[in-house]
Amino acid sequence: MNVNATMEPTLPLRKGEVLPPCGKADLTRWIALSRVPGLGCVNFKKLAEHFDDPTVAFSAPAEALAKIQGLDPNVIDGLHRFSAWAEMEAEVRRAENAAIKIVPFTDPIYPARLRLIADPPPFLYVKGEIRDQDERAVAVVGSRSASDYGRRVARDLCRGLASLGFTVVSGMARGIDGAAHEAALHAGGRTLAVLGSGVDRAYPREHEKLYQRISESGAVISEFPLGTGPVAFNFPVRNRLISGLSLGVVVVEATEKSGSLITASLASEQGREVFAVPGEAGASRSRGTHRLIRQGAKLVETVNDIVEEIAPQLSALAQNAESAPGRALPQHLADEFQKIFALFQERSLQIDEVIERSGCSPSRVSEILLELELLGYVKQLPGKKYRVEG
Amino acid sequence: MNVNATMEPTLPLRKGEVLPPCGKADLTRWIALSRVPGLGCVNFKKLAEHFDDPTVAFSAPAEALAKIQGLDPNVIDGLHRFSAWAEMEAEVRRAENAAIKIVPFTDPIYPARLRLIADPPPFLYVKGEIRDQDERAVAVVGSRSASDYGRRVARDLCRGLASLGFTVVSGMARGIDGAAHEAALHAGGRTLAVLGSGVDRAYPREHEKLYQRISESGAVISEFPLGTGPVAFNFPVRNRLISGLSLGVVVVEATEKSGSLITASLASEQGREVFAVPGEAGASRSRGTHRLIRQGAKLVETVNDIVEEIAPQLSALAQNAESAPGRALPQHLADEFQKIFALFQERSLQIDEVIERSGCSPSRVSEILLELELLGYVKQLPGKKYRVEG
Repeated sequence: MNVNATMEPTLPLRKGEVLPPCGKADLTRWIALSRVPGLGCVNFKKLAEHFDDPTVAFSAPAEALAKIQGLDPNVIDGLHRFSAWAEMEAEVRRAENAAIKIVPFTDPIYPARLRLIADPPPFLYVKGEIRDQDERAVAVVGSRSASDYGRRVARDLCRGLASLGFTVVSGMARGIDGAAHEAALHAGGRTLAVLGSGVDRAYPREHEKLYQRISESGAVISEFPLGTGPVAFNFPVRNRLISGLSLGVVVVEATEKSGSLITASLASEQGREVFAVPGEAGASRSRGTHRLIRQGAKLVETVNDIVEEIAPQLSALAQNAESAPGRALPQHLADEFQKIFALFQERSLQIDEVIERSGCSPSRVSEILLELELLGYVKQLPGKKYRVEG
Repeated sequence: MNVNATMEPTLPLRKGEVLPPCGKADLTRWIALSRVPGLGCVNFKKLAEHFDDPTVAFSAPAEALAKIQGLDPNVIDGLHRFSAWAEMEAEVRRAENAAIKIVPFTDPIYPARLRLIADPPPFLYVKGEIRDQDERAVAVVGSRSASDYGRRVARDLCRGLASLGFTVVSGMARGIDGAAHEAALHAGGRTLAVLGSGVDRAYPREHEKLYQRISESGAVISEFPLGTGPVAFNFPVRNRLISGLSLGVVVVEATEKSGSLITASLASEQGREVFAVPGEAGASRSRGTHRLIRQGAKLVETVNDIVEEIAPQLSALAQNAESAPGRALPQHLADEFQKIFALFQERSLQIDEVIERSGCSPSRVSEILLELELLGYVKQLPGKKYRVEG
């Protein structure tokens, strides 16, 4: 296979300045980047920091590769000897036939926050659709053997997150994960499921319908080759994507040996907020969350506890977006939010005017304005006045 | 009344270097110190820091009093004008008739830790007996309207604390406080009840039997005059004694407006450890404890969480005590502890020898040795050897 190396000077990737979408031939090179012996995701990140298009590494001279700081020298040999191109082409066809997208690191669709972790996968298999709004994502995870209490809290939090326009990220496992996805879908919100198996199979089988619904109203994501089974080793690896995609990770229930504690620890290493839901003293499924709280995780009772903590990041996101007075709220915010936000399009308003015009109760208006402020859509001015942020 | 001023040079009070117990005439002066208009507990502390015997202030020259840094100048006048000596004598007689001790600040019985707070009462009314071992005290408090869960946790923690030789301090209120005293008594441990009313009346009335039992196996304590009713204002004032007597305060359940949050906040100001028991998200009686945890209180599931945190203070206590190899454990430690501790009297032992000689299971021996180490009675040496601390 002929690979054209274009070693132009590189620039860090910024939103809107990504490479054009790949053709099929290019996709084989992206998949190959994940199969070169010795070239893991950390080495891949080094290539991605060096080249605009990391796939040029296959044809880059050894001396040029040797200059990349921190790159494992064995990788250079691996890159140049790689020859399994026919297999790569077969994988591309297989994905195409199953309506699965292959989303390379340089694609505008590849989640911006995931690009920043130390070991991002070179590409993602995506069944469904990742959208810009999925930048505002919060992960909600927990025990497979959840209690009724745990499932109820997961549902309440995810309903709340969805109604505030957040995308709920989880692992599609039994228990808390399943309840989290279900609640987000039920509230008309978006949800991303990150699998420890190939994205072409629903695992666990009892979540086959959930898998379908997530791929229709969100996305099922994996970095593992199509057909990969749910091997135990994959799950901790997968967990770094759950946290990597999210502003914060909420652990709802976890025994002392739960995989959710790994997700929390990865989240912390990645600089993500870690949240944990308390339970009764002595409840085995709350031992893990209590440990997290002792280690500094924020204790969560309601969705407000989450929003308050990630508010600074939300403001930063809102400022990065093309924000101007009059811009629209995400469609997934509830009707009451849309109605109240619409009132501000022409001028700033006092809270009393908002109450009068909206027809909502004073306490509900206060709540919604506080949420809109925390979410970075409106700004409070002196004298209980509010205006559109931006 | 003739008051002899003995203005000898002063030394800070150390254990074993206190003044001889007071006669009746002296006691009237101690009570008077709490009744002088304008002379609150903070001003009293200034007098106590200046005079070996603060009651000499009644006859000290105004110029000498004026030199006491931070003393409110109005107090000097109040001291010199005080004339209600007959009432004071009546109060002493009333206490005597009700078998209530009046324990002045300088009495060896007055709790050493309480002497250190910024506003200690000049004396305590004590129904029952305060002992040296009550230095190892932990307060357990919470909602009057406790849930079954809260009462169960209070009982479990207090049973554990009592079996480790700790004195349980609480406020004898309905709910958590009552459950805490009951559990300590039931485990054969010591308990102190600090009242917001006079120590001569059981409040609430339904705790009359509990009041009797506490005064027989511990002490009921108050700083309020005999006959004082349970005035709302007294309770926050009383709460500083609950925390002041204790190494740490455990809040088991608390609504958002609970008085237990005041106790926690006073504990924190006094440099005491603050502990809080989690509950389910959404449980109104856990809102207060969750708030404490968010503010930095240590989350408590079992008695070990408490002991671990106060272990450094326990070691300090053990070092202050006359500790020598061979000293005895407090009687209230369970038989298993006594049996294992007795093995170390002659020489240090390896854990395997302890297991063999004690006849206890290896896991139980490990647990007990860990507790004894945390409590400051044994010391671990290299090679899993243990010896008596001291």
